[in-house]
Amino acid sequence: MALNHPNGTPPKAIDLSHHLNTLSKSRHPSPLKDIIKFMAYDGMISLSGETGLTLVDPLSPADSIPALETKKLRIDSTSTPPLAKFLQYGTCEGNAELRQWAYNFTAKIHRPAYADFEILLHPGNTNAWSKLAGLLVEKGDYILTENFTYPSSQAHWIPHGNFAAPVALDGQGLRADALEEVLSCWDKTHPGVRKPHVLYMVSVGSNPTGLTMGAERRQAIYDTCVKHDVIIVEDDPYYFIQYPDYKIGGSKPDHEILPSDKFVESLAPSLLRYDYQGRVIRLESFSKSLAPGLRLGYFVANPIFTERLLRATEVETQDPSGFSQALVLELLKAWGDDGYLAWQQRLRIEYQTRRDWMIDAFSSHFDLVPAEQVSGFKGDGIVASLRHANGSGSTPIFNFVAPTGGMFIWTRFLLAQNPRFRQLKSDKSVTGPEEKFANEFWSQLAENLILLTPGSYYYPWQGGEEATSKVQVVEPDMTYFRFCFSMATEDQMKTGIARFAEVVKKSWEV
Amino acid sequence: MALNHPNGTPPKAIDLSHHLNTLSKSRHPSPLKDIIKFMAYDGMISLSGETGLTLVDPLSPADSIPALETKKLRIDSTSTPPLAKFLQYGTCEGNAELRQWAYNFTAKIHRPAYADFEILLHPGNTNAWSKLAGLLVEKGDYILTENFTYPSSQAHWIPHGNFAAPVALDGQGLRADALEEVLSCWDKTHPGVRKPHVLYMVSVGSNPTGLTMGAERRQAIYDTCVKHDVIIVEDDPYYFIQYPDYKIGGSKPDHEILPSDKFVESLAPSLLRYDYQGRVIRLESFSKSLAPGLRLGYFVANPIFTERLLRATEVETQDPSGFSQALVLELLKAWGDDGYLAWQQRLRIEYQTRRDWMIDAFSSHFDLVPAEQVSGFKGDGIVASLRHANGSGSTPIFNFVAPTGGMFIWTRFLLAQNPRFRQLKSDKSVTGPEEKFANEFWSQLAENLILLTPGSYYYPWQGGEEATSKVQVVEPDMTYFRFCFSMATEDQMKTGIARFAEVVKKSWEV
Repeated sequence: MALNHPNGTPPKAIDLSHHLNTLSKSRHPSPLKDIIKFMAYDGMISLSGETGLTLVDPLSPADSIPALETKKLRIDSTSTPPLAKFLQYGTCEGNAELRQWAYNFTAKIHRPAYADFEILLHPGNTNAWSKLAGLLVEKGDYILTENFTYPSSQAHWIPHGNFAAPVALDGQGLRADALEEVLSCWDKTHPGVRKPHVLYMVSVGSNPTGLTMGAERRQAIYDTCVKHDVIIVEDDPYYFIQYPDYKIGGSKPDHEILPSDKFVESLAPSLLRYDYQGRVIRLESFSKSLAPGLRLGYFVANPIFTERLLRATEVETQDPSGFSQALVLELLKAWGDDGYLAWQQRLRIEYQTRRDWMIDAFSSHFDLVPAEQVSGFKGDGIVASLRHANGSGSTPIFNFVAPTGGMFIWTRFLLAQNPRFRQLKSDKSVTGPEEKFANEFWSQLAENLILLTPGSYYYPWQGGEEATSKVQVVEPDMTYFRFCFSMATEDQMKTGIARFAEVVKKSWEV
Repeated sequence: MALNHPNGTPPKAIDLSHHLNTLSKSRHPSPLKDIIKFMAYDGMISLSGETGLTLVDPLSPADSIPALETKKLRIDSTSTPPLAKFLQYGTCEGNAELRQWAYNFTAKIHRPAYADFEILLHPGNTNAWSKLAGLLVEKGDYILTENFTYPSSQAHWIPHGNFAAPVALDGQGLRADALEEVLSCWDKTHPGVRKPHVLYMVSVGSNPTGLTMGAERRQAIYDTCVKHDVIIVEDDPYYFIQYPDYKIGGSKPDHEILPSDKFVESLAPSLLRYDYQGRVIRLESFSKSLAPGLRLGYFVANPIFTERLLRATEVETQDPSGFSQALVLELLKAWGDDGYLAWQQRLRIEYQTRRDWMIDAFSSHFDLVPAEQVSGFKGDGIVASLRHANGSGSTPIFNFVAPTGGMFIWTRFLLAQNPRFRQLKSDKSVTGPEEKFANEFWSQLAENLILLTPGSYYYPWQGGEEATSKVQVVEPDMTYFRFCFSMATEDQMKTGIARFAEVVKKSWEV
């Protein structure tokens, strides 16, 4: 990939090829590469090709494709370039102009600390993670994850015989000391098992925890990964959906569109900012910043990885949809970087507004108090309590870290004072009272027409029959639910949280 | 999948679940399925979702997406349905309306002999094959293939530790007697190795051989697969590019657009027509019928397979691009089946014209004679000979089966009378004279500005260091090249074949 580096000349990536798995090392370049270099010869006639006639073609008069003249979706079939090239087979790397945009944008926004990073397009982060698992992990490997992690990435690796090695969290996500402990104690805790060499994380608005990692923590996580030779997969679809803290009872922000540089400065840096060795593989997606239906994103990674990922792309997917590529490229060119960043700001304002709707709705039914102001409370963020009707104090029900990114609020329910939970816990025939309570409570919510996502979906899988429903990492007397604030209207949110509060009151008998 | 069957009620698929591999059997449905069924409740408020705000949204005024107003690619952002739904996450099965079209179209065109076939969209046949390998084969398995097979499908399975079990061909492709022999002798020829249970084939206009299998042969192949319990993967991107025989020196056809039913009747049937058990998995692609850049196609398969493929889709790719789905659906609806089939006929006429250009160009430099009229000749199709300048007869150079489908002419070169080859063959230090000659000859062609694809790219890989360059199935004194006639103009074709003939004359010293 010959792309121009717009910045200075930081060091090149170090050799990390020992992280490639057997499958990945076994891939051969397509023999057609030998032919492709000859195609550039002046006057060459190729009868070796494999492309066919396509929809938009000199042979296809515009009137033969009437649907494209409908209102909903129009393609001007007479404009052969630039759309025509997106209709043919691509190079598997993706369109060069779009890759150049991604390269320049990465250099400008994330400023990687090594020189020779590369761009490879992919059809969405689901596929990107699938290709990375096929690049890095062997059967039986453990993958370092957040203590609550994205279930679809797990659902990929479980059938391949891989396991999660969860790392404890605080209000900023992964704790560097906990990561150090997992890694330095590995041989004692998992004798004979290969030490994890891949960390999978969503470090902005994490799914499900909604947590965003600050700059210092990122440096510490990166340094720990250097020390233990760990590759970091930074799955970052929510990067531009970062917004200011929630202020309890405070005045609401005025939602100003900032100049691009001020906006970018306000964001937590990517791990790439610290990556002087090329051990961060960043997964970029247009799903949250433009539209999920595009199925388009890109890897930012060191050349050892992009070259092997390209081999996988050739046989597993080929290019992302040419239409998606064309649409995004047109949009980015028409907008320019400033226009694109302004659009991202409008999106983040929408998400921030929704977060505020949700927490405001919580505050209509619960007392919200910062955890550090609740004496003896162990936990992060904000504690939501139900005030007793008789004025005799209040019962803490759940706590949560108000997100500064993404679209999720991760709530930790404090079950110690719930009568039904106490009953279940005292019943010796119940083996998992937290899980049983959570199932009952979820059903009560659903019966009252309010749907949440059970926290058990996000428990890291460390083996055993059931992938997701076994309580394995949860503290005693706690359970978790994920609230999503991306799509509901303000009215739906108010109604939904009111229903939720009613179910809580009944269950806690307050 | 609840789709209406427009035909009668043929038998249901038999239980073929023993063909699923360990990986595929280990996949769990997404736990979110439990939630999705509750979403349909009247009045339900879901705060469990995971979708975000997207490009086309009530929140996004049309003026914010100026690029979409450009000439090249237009989306009317005010037309929320039906485009908006394609911008969000899909169901992984693909859009219901498009699947219903595919179902009805399959029932009408291919008339499967079992009742409960299903449709699952995929992002192109490259990915479809990748998912099928992940569904059916274990490490170490052999896969039944044509004797010359599509290299990208092999490039997928080689790193996974799989091998080809090639089956000999004649002018109609796979020979049923050869398939029977490979299977019935397997335990003797490959003691201790699992008998192949998957057949991968391109039965219309095969790549590279250009061969199309007739109806009787299909019945015989299907019966053999029933007898030996083999799953048939019918990779069929060229299905509608079927056209009449080439007539040496004959008058050219008038390229009439037939009524749809006459056109469909003129085509070789899909293996589905014979499939009363649900053992054919058909890979449909819009790459050759509309545009490769769409990255869109669909599986036709029995429910056991589509259910497992859906599990893989959830974690490996998600839906194909929503834009590609929207575009194809709009096009198919606007055209109707007759319009779509008329478009396919226009395409097949273009390909037939190009095939004729190429063979006509051959005939300007070589004598073309049907193989059965050349006394003592062993081989199919047409023999191309160079007439001697002194009038003393002619030297046969290559033979080929004039394709009746697809875009390739597969040429078998007869090296016995080539001076350079004879020299190589008599040199005891040369271990593979056919391969060495082919490499030299290919380079001579390239130096004379004509590119062909070496036949060795298509040799089935049965183990060993090099995936594609080892001669393993080739008859002595033969080598192969693939000509592609899809893209060159008539002038390029004439010039290219003239250059090719010149190189041949020099090499054969005729």
